[in-house]
Order: sequence, then C-alpha cells, then structure tokens
Amino acid sequence: MTDLVRGEVQEKLINGVFNCPKEFTLSMFSGKWKINIIYHLGKEGAYYFSEIQRLLPAASHKELSEKLKELAADGLVDRKPVKDQRVTLTPLGETLLPIVNAMYDWGTKRLQELQLAGDVTFGLGEVKNTD
Amino acid sequence: MTDLVRGEVQEKLINGVFNCPKEFTLSMFSGKWKINIIYHLGKEGAYYFSEIQRLLPAASHKELSEKLKELAADGLVDRKPVKDQRVTLTPLGETLLPIVNAMYDWGTKRLQELQLAGDVTFGLGEVKNTD
Repeated sequence: MTDLVRGEVQEKLINGVFNCPKEFTLSMFSGKWKINIIYHLGKEGAYYFSEIQRLLPAASHKELSEKLKELAADGLVDRKPVKDQRVTLTPLGETLLPIVNAMYDWGTKRLQELQLAGDVTFGLGEVKNTD
Repeated sequence: MTDLVRGEVQEKLINGVFNCPKEFTLSMFSGKWKINIIYHLGKEGAYYFSEIQRLLPAASHKELSEKLKELAADGLVDRKPVKDQRVTLTPLGETLLPIVNAMYDWGTKRLQELQLAGDVTFGLGEVKNTD
C-alpha cells in the first residue's frame, strides 16, 4: 500500500532518477503505522516494543516489527539489537517531529470543522489521538 | 497505491471509527502527484490544467484530472467548472503549505546529506524540484 512509496522512491534513488524532496520526505513516514510510531516516540521519548504494540493494538507484531526496521534503516529510530531495549528517535528522526506535529494539528482542526459542519459522524470529543 | 489511504480514511470517517488526525492530514496529499500539485500551486498561485500537465510530464491526463477532482472534493483546490479557468488553492489548501514546504526543505536537506555520504548516486545539483 503506502509502503510502495518507499520502495518506489528507493528504486529511483538507486537509479539516480529521483529529484523530488517532498516525495522523499513523504516516503519516510507514509508506510502504515510509521507516522504514529514517530509521533508517540516524539511525545514520550522512548518505548519498549510491547508498549508500542499496546499503543497501536490494530497493528500486528509482524507489521510493527517491519515498520521499525524500515524506520531504523532510514535512520529515524534507534532500535538496540538487544531485547528489552527501548526504541527511541534518532536526532534525525526528531527533525521530523515539527512536520508530524503540524500534521496532527492540521488534522485535528480540520476534523473538528468537518464535524461541526456535520460531514463526519463521530463525536467532537473523539477527535483525539488514540490510534 | 497511496490513494488507498484516502479511501480507507474516508470509509472510517463515514463509519465513525476514525480518530487519527495525522493520518487524516496524510490522506489529503499522499495520493500520487497531489503533494506536487499543492506545492506548485502554492508557489505560483494559479495554473491552467495544461500548465500542471507540463510541470508533471510523467503524470497522465487521466491521473491529473482524477487527483484534481479529489483535491477539489477535499476542499483544497478550487477548480472552476468552466474550461480555460485556472486551478488555485482554496484558503483551506493554503493552510497545508507550511507542511508541504517543510517536507520540501526536510527532503532537500536529507537528500544532500545522503549524497555527501555517497548513499545516493545523483549529483548534488540535481536535488531540486523538477518533478
């Protein structure tokens, strides 16, 4: 799905035919769960894998494990190879937080507007991040 | 592809089971070409369809037409129904520009770092937006 973005961008980079910085940034967090992982790590600083799993109950263990590997490969999270080590954002990963947080704020505001206009059905109190 | 994000998010909104503002924002511009369209409109203010087509030569007429319809449906662009009218961002669409521009800046900086580290093969001078 969105993970195709990352694959496509990486293929283009390898072939030297890539020159769209916006799509490159998009490819950093558009894979499923990634933006949520970055957001939560940004808020709390560090999480054990099991804690991330609890924060994102709809994600399978395999999915989360894959996404964390990709985030690590892209230099955004620092996942110690030792079990029971916490996952943290790298300094590079932290530089994405202003964008992720701005997306959170924009989405919150827009969902509230749509809700007030009657275009979405859930309660206003539910426009919050519970993933 | 990434367009699945938009479909999934809209389905969740309709069913009242959606509460992730970041993913909502992501769904606004993660469809193919959308972030480029928003970026270019933000820089120039208004474009005829044919001009957008020239800016994004790899996009088919059908793809661009579909993406502009989705952007209009989401309230981000104002496309006059009359032929030969220019496409512009709506005031709502303009509120996405800080995020899109921050993504452009982040991607430019990171691609340059990777290029300096020898991890990507294209020339530094090519890290610019030509889509």
